[in-house]
Amino acid sequence: MSEERQALVRGATRFIAIVGDPISQVLSPEIYNPRLVKANALLLPLHVPSSTFETVMPSLRRIANLAGLVFTVPFKERAIPFADEVLPAGRQIGAINAMRPGADGRWTADMFDGTGLVRALERLDATPAGRRVLLIGAGGAGRAIAIALARARASALTIFDVDQGKLKRLADDVRRFYPTCAITTPERVDAARHDIVINATPVGMTAGDGFPAPLGALDSATVVFDIVPTPTMTPLMAHAAAAGCRTGGGRLMIESQAEAVLEFLGFVSSAPSYAHHAK
Amino acid sequence: MSEERQALVRGATRFIAIVGDPISQVLSPEIYNPRLVKANALLLPLHVPSSTFETVMPSLRRIANLAGLVFTVPFKERAIPFADEVLPAGRQIGAINAMRPGADGRWTADMFDGTGLVRALERLDATPAGRRVLLIGAGGAGRAIAIALARARASALTIFDVDQGKLKRLADDVRRFYPTCAITTPERVDAARHDIVINATPVGMTAGDGFPAPLGALDSATVVFDIVPTPTMTPLMAHAAAAGCRTGGGRLMIESQAEAVLEFLGFVSSAPSYAHHAK
Repeated sequence: MSEERQALVRGATRFIAIVGDPISQVLSPEIYNPRLVKANALLLPLHVPSSTFETVMPSLRRIANLAGLVFTVPFKERAIPFADEVLPAGRQIGAINAMRPGADGRWTADMFDGTGLVRALERLDATPAGRRVLLIGAGGAGRAIAIALARARASALTIFDVDQGKLKRLADDVRRFYPTCAITTPERVDAARHDIVINATPVGMTAGDGFPAPLGALDSATVVFDIVPTPTMTPLMAHAAAAGCRTGGGRLMIESQAEAVLEFLGFVSSAPSYAHHAK
Repeated sequence: MSEERQALVRGATRFIAIVGDPISQVLSPEIYNPRLVKANALLLPLHVPSSTFETVMPSLRRIANLAGLVFTVPFKERAIPFADEVLPAGRQIGAINAMRPGADGRWTADMFDGTGLVRALERLDATPAGRRVLLIGAGGAGRAIAIALARARASALTIFDVDQGKLKRLADDVRRFYPTCAITTPERVDAARHDIVINATPVGMTAGDGFPAPLGALDSATVVFDIVPTPTMTPLMAHAAAAGCRTGGGRLMIESQAEAVLEFLGFVSSAPSYAHHAK
């Protein structure tokens, strides 16, 4: 740990709480805290048992040196009623992951899970605007990413999921909110017809996992992104790299998301520039 | 900040909250945190507005990675109803400054403000057992110290305060709880007749403050302790040092108290040995 890694806690230190159940698995403290050193602030994990979340939340909001709240599983949907205002992405997704206090005591919330991915794509010189994107997975992460891609003016979005109910609901919502984004939900997908391919499922996290779906041949011009944070090289990413594609992974998404959340909470990120993750 | 000064926050980090209003003045994070590095724990200041304390407390108790609570002004009395059990010193003083969770979800509380002073005296080779002690001040700090000295079997305790009501209540309580400790409350005091002299008032904190009371001549065998944390050398301590007395100050008391609190919370202190504060 170098001097730059984390602020020394003092009486005047403010904190951001990341709230989840369980919480010990989160990587956020190590990602956020180096960026909070200069602001004399700290991200602290709070393990709030799921059964007590609704009881605890109003009290957390009252802590005067709490500079923000970050939510992880299983609270991203359940946190919504505790915000005084939810910004458009959060409302459309139906989930939030960050909440900030205003000077008037009101709390404003938004969702940055998809924003993190869009920012990560920008770092890979693959800004979604005008691109055709193939998204594998219509669960919580996939939903946040689909809305964020449509907000970022992707021209076409192909969504694949084995859960037809989730898939239909997400496709309908994106069509409704972003009618200019062409949504398709084929039963078989072909990566070759897309500029960007994204895995938003957990497939690739466990040893022996293959690809999240049969994708067909990869064009070297296609950018392939896998949100799985570990391992850093999933089977899909290895396959894409072998095909000459630029690739991005979960760690880059988490870092990009942290930057977006810290901006939202009023902290200017002071992190050094990223290592370039593109291949 | 060296590597030893503070633990790196991770997902599995536990925390102790110090709760007060205001909170930015507390020195506790800097004193506790170096001692919590090896335990992957952290002391964090929580600014709980006074008007919300009773609302917030039940929720704080529910946070699963909260390893303990420390209370400062104005909550030391108001925290008592939130403990499932209060240990004898806390009950006798009528105030607590630390609370720990049990495996069964019950919280146990105690008061360490006086314990810190007794431990500091031990470090100065002035263990209170069998000693005659002159205590200036019967307010919150004086009350905790008087009870702790009597618990530590001081043979005689002379207490001085201009507030006769507080003085009488404290003297009566100490007599009741510790009938073998000889309590006197004279209107004029004489330091020379005591082994230990303690200032438990804020007098000495502000430039131009004199002594907290007329004390008469000091014997070089008398140990003089001033709980004022800053300045580190108060007029009383300077006077005592000039008379050849051993002296101790507020910082030593705070450090000794932190050790006692950390033991109570189940953390073994890993701090290096103290510099010897005795003159």
